Amino acid sequence: MANDLKREGISEASATNERLTPRRGVEIREVGPRDGLQVEKPLSVEERLSLIKALVEAGATEIEAASFVSPKAVPAMAGAGELFKALDDSDEVRYWALVPNLRGAEMALESSAKALTVTISASPAYNLHNVAMSIEDSIRELTRITALVANSSNSREIPVDAVVSCAFGSPYEGDISPLDVAVLTERLLEIGVSRVTWADTTGMATPRLITALLESSSPPDVGLHLHDTRGTALLNAYVALEHGVRRFDTAIGGLGGSPFAKGASGNLATCDLVYLLDEMGIASGFNLSKLLEAASLLEQLVGHPLPSKVYAAGPRIATNS
Amino acid sequence: MANDLKREGISEASATNERLTPRRGVEIREVGPRDGLQVEKPLSVEERLSLIKALVEAGATEIEAASFVSPKAVPAMAGAGELFKALDDSDEVRYWALVPNLRGAEMALESSAKALTVTISASPAYNLHNVAMSIEDSIRELTRITALVANSSNSREIPVDAVVSCAFGSPYEGDISPLDVAVLTERLLEIGVSRVTWADTTGMATPRLITALLESSSPPDVGLHLHDTRGTALLNAYVALEHGVRRFDTAIGGLGGSPFAKGASGNLATCDLVYLLDEMGIASGFNLSKLLEAASLLEQLVGHPLPSKVYAAGPRIATNS
Repeated sequence: MANDLKREGISEASATNERLTPRRGVEIREVGPRDGLQVEKPLSVEERLSLIKALVEAGATEIEAASFVSPKAVPAMAGAGELFKALDDSDEVRYWALVPNLRGAEMALESSAKALTVTISASPAYNLHNVAMSIEDSIRELTRITALVANSSNSREIPVDAVVSCAFGSPYEGDISPLDVAVLTERLLEIGVSRVTWADTTGMATPRLITALLESSSPPDVGLHLHDTRGTALLNAYVALEHGVRRFDTAIGGLGGSPFAKGASGNLATCDLVYLLDEMGIASGFNLSKLLEAASLLEQLVGHPLPSKVYAAGPRIATNS
Repeated sequence: MANDLKREGISEASATNERLTPRRGVEIREVGPRDGLQVEKPLSVEERLSLIKALVEAGATEIEAASFVSPKAVPAMAGAGELFKALDDSDEVRYWALVPNLRGAEMALESSAKALTVTISASPAYNLHNVAMSIEDSIRELTRITALVANSSNSREIPVDAVVSCAFGSPYEGDISPLDVAVLTERLLEIGVSRVTWADTTGMATPRLITALLESSSPPDVGLHLHDTRGTALLNAYVALEHGVRRFDTAIGGLGGSPFAKGASGNLATCDLVYLLDEMGIASGFNLSKLLEAASLLEQLVGHPLPSKVYAAGPRIATNS
């Protein structure tokens, strides 16, 4: 009986949840070209553009294409300006730039980025390691970034997504209080960010923590950025879907990590989430077989096997082909 | 609200579900010494006994210790008789022997096995490849095995668990009808097997299929034997838990596969399921840190990294230790 109610809950949410994008059930932002590639041997801008092209062909309409960080700190992200200028200017795809600070935001806007992600951590120690700022300093920096974007001469609206890292735990402090994450989220929305994404940077989220955070605070249009460090990313996405979350960051082939956080291995793989969504009858706008082609291209580019098991095994029918 | 109901459903099930073992919330049968090792380079009986000892120290009370198959077909399972005779005879742990046929069952009983698993497939083609019999022939063989066990001079009750492979799909036929699985399950219970376990031999189960099968047929005390070929094993276990399933086969470190089925990679890892159950507050009788020690021993014995991500990353707190 509980399960009947649960399934009704999901159907009801699918039909009426105001967070739903009209065109599709779930919005996936493909972060492979940024989060996936940042710890790999550097690829050329042309190679990265070929990956992005394959992702667009597979159905991606939201892509985090690069970060505007120091090439000394993250060599794989060198040439972000050149890359953004080479991206097509159509309205079909929104390319996001990750920026660590105001200078990065200025560079991203100069390079015609259409959308910004800015990281801020729920973990003071992680924030210090990742962007060398206190959380309060990061909030002030984010305030400057939202002001910059608001005053930008670009006529199109440029969303700023505050990505709250370590939202489900920190490799430094351990547990992070859901209340702290909720308060930080509230403040970020108050200073004018367009949306908030909770990141499980080092794969510490579990169904218990996903549930605790979503029930203590459920900002409109909250997104999840999940890592598979402990093999729980897909399960956590499923639990979040049950709670009405309809926005996810994923990376092609499950590549990913952080150069600044030990244990921050692989992102939730785009093809793994799309496989699950297809099975659940929830539209994502992605074509699974074309996604697997894009993953194959990525595997050639990085020169090593990808973590995604759906990529390795293929879809469930016709394993012995 | 739907989620409140869902959680209440789980708690209610935990409190009152008649399938629950009194001593613990979930019964895990550790199948690593059999399903985990069968595709590895052969270990000595002493090495396998040392692994079993470590599993018992970690809390295992149900262990599939070996299979009575031809050492020519599965060299890693050689010495099953010697191994079973060396196991302690306490009532604390029940050691299961996998047997492919009547001859195997006779050998297992002669070696003092306390419990038998017998495989039969829901997929005709897989059954033919795995045990060289039609499904009807396998049912007849199982009838002989249950008769043998019933007439056994051993005074203790020896359960026979029929493990239905390819219950969620076959690498040969593709989809397997839940109705076919339900009918086969019914027949197996009619011929006198003690319990039935549905196996996802090549990792084709998804939440949709788990739900479909559990709602079309829910035999008492049904168990699940999940593989992680497509990264869905832990999610499938979670969905099954939500549906009241309280019995799972898992393998230490996520090792495993089948010598006869392409794509039958890793079992659901014991430590991954125990990590999830600990997070959900469901007792399993296992100690996670001792399980990780047993996995470490296994890794040394097999000489290559284990698939389990919880083993690789460690529990969620104190990643940067």
